[in-house]
Amino acid sequence: MTSDEIQAVSAQFRADLLQDTLPFWLDRSVDQEYGGYLTSFDRDGRQLQTDKSVWFQGRFAWLLSVVSESVEPRESWLTTARHGIDFLQRHCIDQDGRYFFLVTRDGRPLRKRRYVFSECFAAMAYAAYGKAAEEERYCELALDLFQMLQRQMGPDSTLEPKLNSAVRPMKSLANPMILMGVAQEIRRTTQHPDCNDLIDQLVSEIRRDFVKPDLRCVLENVGVNGEIVDTFDGRQVNPGHSIELAWFLMEEGRQRDLPEYCELGLQILDWSLELGWDRQYGGLYYYRDCYGLPSAEYWHDMKFWWPHAESIIATLLAWRLTGEERYWKLFRQVHQWSYQHFADPEYGEWFGYLHRDGTLSSTIKGNQWKGPYHLPRMQHYCWKLLEEVTHAQPV
Amino acid sequence: MTSDEIQAVSAQFRADLLQDTLPFWLDRSVDQEYGGYLTSFDRDGRQLQTDKSVWFQGRFAWLLSVVSESVEPRESWLTTARHGIDFLQRHCIDQDGRYFFLVTRDGRPLRKRRYVFSECFAAMAYAAYGKAAEEERYCELALDLFQMLQRQMGPDSTLEPKLNSAVRPMKSLANPMILMGVAQEIRRTTQHPDCNDLIDQLVSEIRRDFVKPDLRCVLENVGVNGEIVDTFDGRQVNPGHSIELAWFLMEEGRQRDLPEYCELGLQILDWSLELGWDRQYGGLYYYRDCYGLPSAEYWHDMKFWWPHAESIIATLLAWRLTGEERYWKLFRQVHQWSYQHFADPEYGEWFGYLHRDGTLSSTIKGNQWKGPYHLPRMQHYCWKLLEEVTHAQPV
Repeated sequence: MTSDEIQAVSAQFRADLLQDTLPFWLDRSVDQEYGGYLTSFDRDGRQLQTDKSVWFQGRFAWLLSVVSESVEPRESWLTTARHGIDFLQRHCIDQDGRYFFLVTRDGRPLRKRRYVFSECFAAMAYAAYGKAAEEERYCELALDLFQMLQRQMGPDSTLEPKLNSAVRPMKSLANPMILMGVAQEIRRTTQHPDCNDLIDQLVSEIRRDFVKPDLRCVLENVGVNGEIVDTFDGRQVNPGHSIELAWFLMEEGRQRDLPEYCELGLQILDWSLELGWDRQYGGLYYYRDCYGLPSAEYWHDMKFWWPHAESIIATLLAWRLTGEERYWKLFRQVHQWSYQHFADPEYGEWFGYLHRDGTLSSTIKGNQWKGPYHLPRMQHYCWKLLEEVTHAQPV
Repeated sequence: MTSDEIQAVSAQFRADLLQDTLPFWLDRSVDQEYGGYLTSFDRDGRQLQTDKSVWFQGRFAWLLSVVSESVEPRESWLTTARHGIDFLQRHCIDQDGRYFFLVTRDGRPLRKRRYVFSECFAAMAYAAYGKAAEEERYCELALDLFQMLQRQMGPDSTLEPKLNSAVRPMKSLANPMILMGVAQEIRRTTQHPDCNDLIDQLVSEIRRDFVKPDLRCVLENVGVNGEIVDTFDGRQVNPGHSIELAWFLMEEGRQRDLPEYCELGLQILDWSLELGWDRQYGGLYYYRDCYGLPSAEYWHDMKFWWPHAESIIATLLAWRLTGEERYWKLFRQVHQWSYQHFADPEYGEWFGYLHRDGTLSSTIKGNQWKGPYHLPRMQHYCWKLLEEVTHAQPV
């Protein structure tokens, strides 16, 4: 690819983020009456429900803090980030310090879940906001929560597992992965000295227990010592999730100059595209079985927006790290399929849910799971990565 | 339709049940080593996991008891029914008397859930087995469980709701519906005198709170006083579930000569086919929104086997009750679409999960949710209903 081409792709990500994705959410998510963010919208922005996802109070506040810091210190972005953070602190924390999962529009608790992802996204939001707004106390809040998360997700976790752990002790890839993401963000914003050690521990746990070179995949759920549990859950591969892991690893390797992390990430990316890419219709399957058996989830072969956003990041970063033409081609392939099928030229942003054959399953733009996170994070990340390429020399 | 046609359709249901569906399960479900039933199989019978669904220990034992009583008193059916009942009693009951949801192959508890459907299917199995085997003590067990279920599903229920009931008190159609099904079975098998009263209470609650004539549908979840809750969950209609309710009501009306129950059932059937039938591809959508908004569930437009089995029963019973040609036509339409798309002529039984356009999504024949229940219940019910027609005079 030429430097002109790179510049054009970079400018497109920038425009997509600043002129499409961010305005879609900023224009309708911010609840001036009750605080916080609304995320349930139909394709044209029609509101579908007003209950508030606690994940998205953290996720959107994180995103706005990041763009405010890295794009330009726009006052309205910071104010809007703070808007979600205030709602989090006022309404989303239970008496035991754990966070809720879903609250009403005016902040009364509807649902609390057994896992701690709400807390993870809150910690990322506090950290990013503290740095962007230069308000030390939010960094401290982030650190407190980070400590709590390490205790709750560690070996003496008091979180209730899905299955009876006395009978079938299992663990999920999601836990070390999100903790790794939180640690990366805490390190970036607070320079906390323990983050590298924690990340190294998490990577080594993931490599030892979840990564299966003989099966050429990463498992979502394994026995506590990495044993393969021969059930639907135990054989489950989520290629999009593996690919998200792949770029977390490559990014870590890049930042700390650890080639073995980059290699592991590249390996996982290759396996996951091989297993996850639908050679008949294009796009990434949601679930695959590590032995090629049927998956038990109804939506196993649907094409969701977020694995595609993660794959755009991972293929572009793989190209940046290796300079290999084949990764640029993969990047273009995933990018093209995604924008052709998910983008909504009429009302902006992306659709979230397609049938296997790429036709639209739902016109929803947002709900408890889809909102301002994977898509704008991808657009921001790829824009900045390509900007770095055009400013530096080609690798 | 001619009497020859009716006889042919009846004979086909009989053959489907006795020569296809029952053998599919009897040949591979019965675990001679650890007791109970296995249900997770691929299309050709390959085993996909060995964890045991507690629902299916009850459901298959119930089915075998019913066919043993109504078809012929075949010893092997009764023995196999008892095989599941023994496993239920030995391995599926927690210390508090509540039943588990999932256990290992050898009966160690993996998961218990907040609702009591395991208990409902166990009660139906005990009742049907007690009557078929003429073993009074199983009828007593069924009655004990029936009392417990009434307490747990009644106004002073101690079951934990999905959403915080102090903030948003809601209730689900599934509860009065399954309790109605259990009460019908308890009445059939034990002549317990309170069943009619309970069923009348349940029907009046359903009619008052869940049936929405102005919206021409039945809601799955409403406020405790039947209020419409304007959220994804509160707007959710499951046409197949509504249609199952429709035939429960028609059957109740038919047995007790209560025309208003039959009329309500017919009304719900008409609404639900109108809302749920896919006019483009045929088949029944899984979820619809009562205001025509998008549903939040990923699989909302997939075609599942069980709504089709329920619709075959409901349309046939509607024809039997009214004699109206249009219900016979609807029965043929649903029957034809279902057998064309779900049946597997190569390995028998039905597939469970199709894409919206009728193509196969998964080759699975059984899992925790799909096993010997909806399909054989439909084949048995329709066979017996048509046998009644051919023995009686045309209505």
